[in-house]
Amino acid sequence: MDVLEAIMQTFWDKIKANHLEGLESLTTIGIEREAQRVDTQGHLALSDHPASLGDRAFHPYLQTDFAESQTETITDTHVGVTAVMEQLQGLTATLARALPKDERLWLQTMPPVLPGDLATVPVAHPSPERLAYRQKLIGATGDVRQQMMSSVHLNLSLPETLFERLYEAEDFGGQAPDYVTYRNQIYVHLSQQWLLHRSVITYLFGASPLANSADYPDAPKQPVRSLHSSRQFGYHNPDDVQVRYSSAEAYANDIAAAVQSGSLISAANYYGGVRLRGENLTQTGIEYLEFRDFDLNPFVVTSLSPEELQFVVDYVWFLFSQPMLEANEVTKKLTQAATDNERMAMADPFSPAQNLVPFFDEMAEWLNAQQPSAPRVAAFTAMQDRILHPEQTPAARLTTLIQASEYQHAGLQLADELTQSLTAEPYLLPGYTDMEQSTQMLIEDSYRLGLKVDLLDRDDQLVQLTLQDHQEWVRAGNETRLDSLVVSRLVDDKLATKAVLGAAKLPVARAAVYHDWASARADFVGSFLNKSIVVKPKSSNVGAGVTIFAVPPAEADFKRAFDFAHEYGDVLVELFIKGTEYRFFVVGDQVRAILERIPANVVGDGQHTIAELVDKKNQDPRRGDAHRKPLQTLRLEDRQLQVLASQGLTPDSVPLRGHQAFLLTNSNISTGGDSYDVTDEMDASYKKLAVQASQALQQTISGVDIIIPNLYVPYEPDKGMATIVESNYNPAMFMHLFPYMGEPRRVTLDVITTLFPELPESGASFEA
Amino acid sequence: MDVLEAIMQTFWDKIKANHLEGLESLTTIGIEREAQRVDTQGHLALSDHPASLGDRAFHPYLQTDFAESQTETITDTHVGVTAVMEQLQGLTATLARALPKDERLWLQTMPPVLPGDLATVPVAHPSPERLAYRQKLIGATGDVRQQMMSSVHLNLSLPETLFERLYEAEDFGGQAPDYVTYRNQIYVHLSQQWLLHRSVITYLFGASPLANSADYPDAPKQPVRSLHSSRQFGYHNPDDVQVRYSSAEAYANDIAAAVQSGSLISAANYYGGVRLRGENLTQTGIEYLEFRDFDLNPFVVTSLSPEELQFVVDYVWFLFSQPMLEANEVTKKLTQAATDNERMAMADPFSPAQNLVPFFDEMAEWLNAQQPSAPRVAAFTAMQDRILHPEQTPAARLTTLIQASEYQHAGLQLADELTQSLTAEPYLLPGYTDMEQSTQMLIEDSYRLGLKVDLLDRDDQLVQLTLQDHQEWVRAGNETRLDSLVVSRLVDDKLATKAVLGAAKLPVARAAVYHDWASARADFVGSFLNKSIVVKPKSSNVGAGVTIFAVPPAEADFKRAFDFAHEYGDVLVELFIKGTEYRFFVVGDQVRAILERIPANVVGDGQHTIAELVDKKNQDPRRGDAHRKPLQTLRLEDRQLQVLASQGLTPDSVPLRGHQAFLLTNSNISTGGDSYDVTDEMDASYKKLAVQASQALQQTISGVDIIIPNLYVPYEPDKGMATIVESNYNPAMFMHLFPYMGEPRRVTLDVITTLFPELPESGASFEA
Repeated sequence: MDVLEAIMQTFWDKIKANHLEGLESLTTIGIEREAQRVDTQGHLALSDHPASLGDRAFHPYLQTDFAESQTETITDTHVGVTAVMEQLQGLTATLARALPKDERLWLQTMPPVLPGDLATVPVAHPSPERLAYRQKLIGATGDVRQQMMSSVHLNLSLPETLFERLYEAEDFGGQAPDYVTYRNQIYVHLSQQWLLHRSVITYLFGASPLANSADYPDAPKQPVRSLHSSRQFGYHNPDDVQVRYSSAEAYANDIAAAVQSGSLISAANYYGGVRLRGENLTQTGIEYLEFRDFDLNPFVVTSLSPEELQFVVDYVWFLFSQPMLEANEVTKKLTQAATDNERMAMADPFSPAQNLVPFFDEMAEWLNAQQPSAPRVAAFTAMQDRILHPEQTPAARLTTLIQASEYQHAGLQLADELTQSLTAEPYLLPGYTDMEQSTQMLIEDSYRLGLKVDLLDRDDQLVQLTLQDHQEWVRAGNETRLDSLVVSRLVDDKLATKAVLGAAKLPVARAAVYHDWASARADFVGSFLNKSIVVKPKSSNVGAGVTIFAVPPAEADFKRAFDFAHEYGDVLVELFIKGTEYRFFVVGDQVRAILERIPANVVGDGQHTIAELVDKKNQDPRRGDAHRKPLQTLRLEDRQLQVLASQGLTPDSVPLRGHQAFLLTNSNISTGGDSYDVTDEMDASYKKLAVQASQALQQTISGVDIIIPNLYVPYEPDKGMATIVESNYNPAMFMHLFPYMGEPRRVTLDVITTLFPELPESGASFEA
Repeated sequence: MDVLEAIMQTFWDKIKANHLEGLESLTTIGIEREAQRVDTQGHLALSDHPASLGDRAFHPYLQTDFAESQTETITDTHVGVTAVMEQLQGLTATLARALPKDERLWLQTMPPVLPGDLATVPVAHPSPERLAYRQKLIGATGDVRQQMMSSVHLNLSLPETLFERLYEAEDFGGQAPDYVTYRNQIYVHLSQQWLLHRSVITYLFGASPLANSADYPDAPKQPVRSLHSSRQFGYHNPDDVQVRYSSAEAYANDIAAAVQSGSLISAANYYGGVRLRGENLTQTGIEYLEFRDFDLNPFVVTSLSPEELQFVVDYVWFLFSQPMLEANEVTKKLTQAATDNERMAMADPFSPAQNLVPFFDEMAEWLNAQQPSAPRVAAFTAMQDRILHPEQTPAARLTTLIQASEYQHAGLQLADELTQSLTAEPYLLPGYTDMEQSTQMLIEDSYRLGLKVDLLDRDDQLVQLTLQDHQEWVRAGNETRLDSLVVSRLVDDKLATKAVLGAAKLPVARAAVYHDWASARADFVGSFLNKSIVVKPKSSNVGAGVTIFAVPPAEADFKRAFDFAHEYGDVLVELFIKGTEYRFFVVGDQVRAILERIPANVVGDGQHTIAELVDKKNQDPRRGDAHRKPLQTLRLEDRQLQVLASQGLTPDSVPLRGHQAFLLTNSNISTGGDSYDVTDEMDASYKKLAVQASQALQQTISGVDIIIPNLYVPYEPDKGMATIVESNYNPAMFMHLFPYMGEPRRVTLDVITTLFPELPESGASFEA
């Protein structure tokens, strides 16, 4: 036993002695998950990979594996369980939503019904090189069946601090290895333990009990835990590929030799239960371990639940507490472990695994010694339950489902359910629902198109998007490099905005600010006499101190309104313009969406009361809490009752058929307003006006509010046909994405394609 | 009497009937004021117009009139008295501060001592065309003396609403004139009245009682009210130039004829007491009136006080109440008025003018009928006092001054005083002292260089700068088009900033944010064990919840600090870096200024107590209220006493010679900190680092804070020689402009030249 092996015997004690147990939460994790696409009958989809999913030449997240139908979802590496699971959720939803309407995600390890002629399965063709490699994989037989299974791979690396601290603290007694060798040995230790206890994972995570008998006539008719994890049916290399796990060197040499001898097409073709990964295993050392044993859990959209992943991380750390195998017994013990695993894989999923209980008890003790957090305890308990109750394993549950109906039907039912759960609420991106809704949609679009997404500040909605060497920051959905700081200040300032728009000869309502009554009175006659006006505090947003004179006021009335507003500071007087206000969402020199917003209301049918009509309107599944739904639930509270009363109505009134009753006077969507997309209806002349306003204010992305009496009549200057109210920076996008009525406008996508004009057009034309 | 003349008889009644009196406050005013430059002996400056005052080819504000030494200050037109006076103040200060140290502004109508050989007076040469015109003005004699007098011109226009409302309301009885003719008639009425009562203005504003006898041997030896306003000595045209004021047509025709006959060189050469101005007087009509009668009030830097201007505006409106002259008596009456005015101009300035009293009584009655504002009453009262007390007229006051010493000496004394009052506080721009100080300096630099300045929102420090067709917005001194909205968000976010700088391989202190103790504890060992750290709330700026561990804490201490900060939300833990923090002001790819800030302190002399040393340091005229001074007065209050106590000191302690005693621990200038410019001392490698940080964050104008242990030792990576703390948007500029010690850096100018790279270099290299 050399010095390193000796050290590994008490490795966990060293971690404890150096107080490094806490680093468990800093484990870095990346996930790759394959899954087939199927048609609505549960047959393998023969279509191309969706064009809307960007370009596989660079897509970092959504790729294909062996078959064109076999999607591969790849997360970034993240520190900790939560972050990586959130991204996998988001990517999975993005993937499901990008599928054609007649396709589903088959989130299972064993494939759906394959074409009768296996040679017709389309091999993925992201590039000619990949196609050639994959054709080589199946060889002359054209038997794609092994490659058609899907699995989950986990890439785990331990925090570098762990190695550094231990290396520093270790007493090597004059035989100090170099740092890379030391770190390699730790990873080798973990790999050995993983393989040694491989049957634990197969028991807990096996989920391929049965195959479609027509496609896999040789597979057992009785359910097993995992066809995929068995050497007999799952991925396996020829017998002459023997890879040792006694050291990084041995591992690397064995794989190199197998490739050289032609037993392996390439290193990527080695299907061991764990792979040692790194640029150069002996020089720069092992950087992470790739665990390849996982069947897809068919009951969760991420194919591995957060609980399961938390358990795996803890399990890996627990393996440190096992004494390292002596070098000369590694091969023997791992061979035995492989045999054990084969037995476990091919066992009845309902059979108990009593032999695992002591090992789990040991792990329970290990965990409890660490004051584990609640999620860690919950994760362990759930897996312990599977040990004690085999019927709770995914293999058993899936068996029950298949046996209750039939392979194809059961699988289709699961595919329908999971796909439905991912697409039912397109206004939320799973994994990111704590963020602003427009940022959620921006992230979904970015994921779809293959932009790398980094959350620079999740709470502040600040994301970084990267495409090759091109990097952009976006905050709150559309604050970008393309709009300047000073313009955001300018457009926040009503008078300055009017000054700039006025100088550009664009139509604005006359307005003025006064410090005192003397100047207001003086100007009143000249500017506002006999005009409808609004009198309000210059810098109030809450509606306090506002008087609207739809009928032009006498001086005495104006004075009262002035004094009222003056209590809050300087007073703004503005012409009151009649007409409908439209929101133009402008990007660059184009209007991308136009919305009309109508205050919360119901329309009578001549039969139902207002209260009943409100209930009915609230049944729209899009209504709810406006932070999680596109539209807000209507209410009948004090404010609404007042507004109804002003129309001579109560909740018990029955409005005439087609007559509208308003519940509020403001048109905000967040208080129940209805949004109508009128992008196509609006006369082009007003779009031009909105673009002119945006450009006069030097804005790239803007929300221009224009009052227009008749949107069908082309604009002519100086005839009161349009009045620009204001132009907003960081304009709301969500209401355009999910309007109450009319065409949805994917303006988040416009932001992205404006920031990344180099994006291929195919994905950018996607309509959600 | 035609219909228009008839209307004008009761013009004021019509204004009253239509409630339009209040429009007085909307009178639009522009001012032009000439003033000579002199040397420190009171001799005319023979130097060129200062090169730092930009390019006269386009300068909208600071020009030259006849002589190269004769500055002309031109305001924009403004609504109301206050705004135009503020600009004139600011422009005058800008002008005075741009003069060479050995020159003064001679703010008087009569010129300073001229060269013995008048032919050596340099004629202004902004362009060959102007030079040729001016040489033609003085003719073959080369006698420049008339042209060397300076005056104030007022351009007044009445609010267009006044004309529109009256025209609309008028009953013309079937003989309605067109609108332009109607408006012209109103302006003609005003012009007639102005000339009819010209002696009032000469009495009130005359301020050229005496001339330098060597230069003007023909001038009276006894003082008069206004040499400049007299036909005999002031500006005048040849007798054959007779211009009628009976109508706009007559006026235009007479001037055209005089130019054609050669009696006038050009229309600009007509020196009537009032000019009718407009593109085309008969087609588009009179747009404004130019009143040319004003001597420079030598006692105010603006040459016309706000009170005097308010009076003039009221006076013009009062003239409306006078019946219009009948057409056939205009010439006769105005000839008589000219004779009266000549007598007034040449009268003893101490002689009373009883004949004006009834007219003033009438105006008093007119004014009182209008519930005038306090400033209007004060303005009228001040002028009424001049009527009742001739010794209060500027002419009399200047006479007293000259007679007490001598023409040259008295004038020089005034020039010294006025120039001193404009330059003593270079950190304030008169007329704009309510604004942020850096914006004041930005405006001064813009005025100096000839950028048109518009205050889009004065309260919000939002200005528009224009050079020809090029327009820029600047808020708070340096928020511009050149910095993006999203970057301002990014740099406000400490962790995101670190992420971006870290990715660019720039040195930042490790930091992390934690939601809970479990993750903080886990990371603590890996990231911060045995390190000096700061533990603080993620989003607190007030210093609450902060613990600094200069000595690395044990876990229990860390836990206490965590809990303390956690009361305010998420907790930020950051490495605590020792060293001095420097502020780098970066514009584009250059560091423009570097400042070291030292907390409020005194340095002992071995004799005085701390209290005495504080008093002494406070005697620096630059210390005061930090919103009006570059440095803040030091205080000795509770906080300071605590800080002294922590050093074992009290206000009565006597520090050793050269020993520094700190009054506070924070280094803000606004709490009495000292600022040291170290731009030249700092090793270039750190400047490069600051620029790299600014560019990695995609900033154009930034304030990068870097901790550097030794500013003289060139930076090397990964050796702890520099730690970038943060990079600010909208960085403070004022402290660089007026540091406590070291070279001032005019960074406001850097902002301007970056926005306007087309500016000529001469002005841009100016150092204030």
